[in-house]
Amino acid sequence: MTNRRGLADRPRDAYIRFMNDSPLRFDAVLAAITFNADGLVPAIAQQHHTGQVLMMAWMNAESIRETLATGRVCYFSRSRGALWRKGETSGHTQHLKDMRIDCDGDTVLLLVHQDGVACHTGRRSCFFRAVRDGGLVAIAAPEDLPAGV
Amino acid sequence: MTNRRGLADRPRDAYIRFMNDSPLRFDAVLAAITFNADGLVPAIAQQHHTGQVLMMAWMNAESIRETLATGRVCYFSRSRGALWRKGETSGHTQHLKDMRIDCDGDTVLLLVHQDGVACHTGRRSCFFRAVRDGGLVAIAAPEDLPAGV
Repeated sequence: MTNRRGLADRPRDAYIRFMNDSPLRFDAVLAAITFNADGLVPAIAQQHHTGQVLMMAWMNAESIRETLATGRVCYFSRSRGALWRKGETSGHTQHLKDMRIDCDGDTVLLLVHQDGVACHTGRRSCFFRAVRDGGLVAIAAPEDLPAGV
Repeated sequence: MTNRRGLADRPRDAYIRFMNDSPLRFDAVLAAITFNADGLVPAIAQQHHTGQVLMMAWMNAESIRETLATGRVCYFSRSRGALWRKGETSGHTQHLKDMRIDCDGDTVLLLVHQDGVACHTGRRSCFFRAVRDGGLVAIAAPEDLPAGV
């Protein structure tokens, strides 16, 4: 079933229902991914309905499996050498809406809904510095966050 | 000068004019970037007016300098070990509209105008495979390209 732009229809959260129903097919997803020598693959997080690129981090097989199974994005922290459940301490959870894999299988694109902000500086996106007037300029200020977010 | 969303105004192509006028300030941009042990940084290319994430590739200092100086995106090909001027052979050039750097300085976001398609499979974006119904499904077909693009 394709729409007029030639794209397959996108049943919302189908992957989550699937993963819960039949986790074996995870191997098909995993087989398409080329992990680096450290067992990691870069993952780009993008706000699903605005297109804003929020951050880039790394995932291993286990974090991908958990992300697909729970619908909440889990990365692998290279500095801590451990799973990093985004928002676990900050409350700034990323809810998975779609997972894409690129042609070479060496990058993952996560379409998410971001609770609060993605950046530890309090900004919505980590990419808040831009080349302007020959230097780097901050183009977004930290947001005031509602309590509990 | 900020607009009502608290963002600095974005003078189009200011970085290109600047780079041509006063290339020394490139060092300020470079100093904000953390390159990996191979001297590379991941770079995400995003179509500037639609938000579509097109691809992820790698840049070194030289490719960043060339990109800012020319306004045409140049990566570093890890497989060839050489500069990769996107579109040089295919004609599928990426025209730089904006360059962003993330909070940790370890990822670059390139807002571009993509001539033709970004993916070597003939698709607009490299991220054309999505997790659907428990497996991976192609959600975009190769485009018919006009001659010469």
